[in-house]
Amino acid sequence: MKNEAFKFEIQGKGGKARAGVFSTPHGDIPTPVFAPVGTQATVKSLTPAQIAETGASLVLSNTYHLYLRPGDELVAEMGGLHRFMNWQQPILTDSGGFQVFSLNEMRKIDEEGVTFKSHIDGSTHRFTPEKSIAIQENLGADIIMAFDECADPSNYDYNVQSMNRTHRWLERCVAAKKRPDQALFGIVQGGIFADLREQSADFVSSFDLPGYAIGGLSVGETKEEMNAMLDIVPERLPENKPRYLMGVGSPEDLVNGILRGVDIFDCVLPTRLARHGAAMSFTGRLNLVNKQYARDSRPIVEGCGCYACQNFTRSYIRHLLMVKEMLGGTLVSIHNIFTLEELTRQARKAILAGTYADFAEKFLADYPTN
Amino acid sequence: MKNEAFKFEIQGKGGKARAGVFSTPHGDIPTPVFAPVGTQATVKSLTPAQIAETGASLVLSNTYHLYLRPGDELVAEMGGLHRFMNWQQPILTDSGGFQVFSLNEMRKIDEEGVTFKSHIDGSTHRFTPEKSIAIQENLGADIIMAFDECADPSNYDYNVQSMNRTHRWLERCVAAKKRPDQALFGIVQGGIFADLREQSADFVSSFDLPGYAIGGLSVGETKEEMNAMLDIVPERLPENKPRYLMGVGSPEDLVNGILRGVDIFDCVLPTRLARHGAAMSFTGRLNLVNKQYARDSRPIVEGCGCYACQNFTRSYIRHLLMVKEMLGGTLVSIHNIFTLEELTRQARKAILAGTYADFAEKFLADYPTN
Repeated sequence: MKNEAFKFEIQGKGGKARAGVFSTPHGDIPTPVFAPVGTQATVKSLTPAQIAETGASLVLSNTYHLYLRPGDELVAEMGGLHRFMNWQQPILTDSGGFQVFSLNEMRKIDEEGVTFKSHIDGSTHRFTPEKSIAIQENLGADIIMAFDECADPSNYDYNVQSMNRTHRWLERCVAAKKRPDQALFGIVQGGIFADLREQSADFVSSFDLPGYAIGGLSVGETKEEMNAMLDIVPERLPENKPRYLMGVGSPEDLVNGILRGVDIFDCVLPTRLARHGAAMSFTGRLNLVNKQYARDSRPIVEGCGCYACQNFTRSYIRHLLMVKEMLGGTLVSIHNIFTLEELTRQARKAILAGTYADFAEKFLADYPTN
Repeated sequence: MKNEAFKFEIQGKGGKARAGVFSTPHGDIPTPVFAPVGTQATVKSLTPAQIAETGASLVLSNTYHLYLRPGDELVAEMGGLHRFMNWQQPILTDSGGFQVFSLNEMRKIDEEGVTFKSHIDGSTHRFTPEKSIAIQENLGADIIMAFDECADPSNYDYNVQSMNRTHRWLERCVAAKKRPDQALFGIVQGGIFADLREQSADFVSSFDLPGYAIGGLSVGETKEEMNAMLDIVPERLPENKPRYLMGVGSPEDLVNGILRGVDIFDCVLPTRLARHGAAMSFTGRLNLVNKQYARDSRPIVEGCGCYACQNFTRSYIRHLLMVKEMLGGTLVSIHNIFTLEELTRQARKAILAGTYADFAEKFLADYPTN
């Protein structure tokens, strides 16, 4: 089925890096873009107004969690995810595959699908490619994902088997999909193995899809292994479609990914770090609970335009974190998401200005390696 | 010391109920008014922007908590509480007395003051009237409170002793106070005993203060006992000064208090209830975790103008509460505070229109007794 509702326009390129606009039924997504994660139909502790204020244009939500609670049928009855969580800009749902494989030690995979136990009450459930698509159609996100297995990236033999099954599942997802107002992205797997990644990129590209994703990275492999895969995969995918690197969200990984032709990123990192008091910046992380910030009247990052930095000091935010007041995590979440959105905005500007290679080189030189 | 910075203008009366404006260095407070509580320099989970959006004009913060963490000297160094928490409207701090007496089983009272142990680490501290004023001067709120003992309201003999000591402490607070930009309110005590309350009201009124508070109510006595005291005390206080009923915040208590001449209220109730999923309304409480709301597409209260009701369904908020997402408590907090602010706005309007007696009668008839 053709997706007339979706269009990807590339507005500028610098090397492999691209600046574009992905149009969806809920508005345009300027790329490169970072999507904050709202696992349970909420980006933890933030109102939609606060999310929008960071400049985020795309929010990710998790099929596995929403299927279990409150249930995808309830969300459909309430008018779909956009209305339910009152986020009127684009939403992306994952397929549930990643959580089924990572949160469930008792899962059983077969050719048809996966049987797993709920992490909440231990009850038994079953996902198949068809079921994942049906749930995602109930949720109603703009971008939905093919059901895949995210395998241990370093086991070659298992990756061959798993990748081929994921390919067969993609065919079934494409066949099962019914809603014309949703864009189904296929997912490239293959672990840390160049030949498998090439095979997978070619197979997934053989489907005329509105976008393509790179899965199974940032799951335990080294940065060098990840970047090696990113040297191969994006440019092997259709040029005129958005490329989405799943689960990646540190500043340096965004810069490296964009450099290699990635357009879309998502990650829980900014909100998870925030709840532990770690603030992101273009020059590394600040652990705001450190004693040195107790009387520091500067904002988290000087010159930062986020609500937290415009209104509060490190001293106040440290106090909130020390006494375990929720507002601390909220303010750092706002700052961290803003930081990644600002990074993609600056990257986009640099690509359009033809200076992205310099931007990336300077950024990576300033960013501490650890 | 005269407080030129403070002025209370009564704009209308209906029976004992008054509509006025209390002017402070950080702006005007239209009365009657409800002050949400920001114990640790934060109204739990809300940004100052969200607090302001409820219409709140006065926020309370707790001297005991801020003295312990982050320390009043740190707050002073950071420019005072308004700058520290970035709340640019009026702030009221309590004296620390209530927490010293309620959170500490090991406290020792003597004529000079109270020795107590921190509820955080068990360390020993001492508050005196002079110390409480010094801390509150460091914090820098617009309204500060005299150091008092909030005694068991039903023990007559103890209340005589405690009230007289509180009176002597008031004299010391008045003598200790230095900042002209802070209004010191005295506190009437006396438990549930009319003769003691009269004695205390007369004693406290003998000081020319910018405002007067009624303490030691809503601490275990019955509603009838509280209202009996409120039948006596407010009208015995100076007519042309604001009257503050401490720690009271249920809708029916506000309506009853206003009816008896109270101008200012504060309470943790709206935010505490919110974190447990209980939403306030003019016709009682909704327990939003109840199953009946799972597919309820209405707002918490139809017609309510708060951010939560304007943007979200009961179904969504119930989901957030069920899966323990912080945004649930945040949205219900916004709703509950808005509800109390809206109640005081409507009461004010009714007083100015000369219809408050009817308003109160109708409100109390609709409000469930429990």
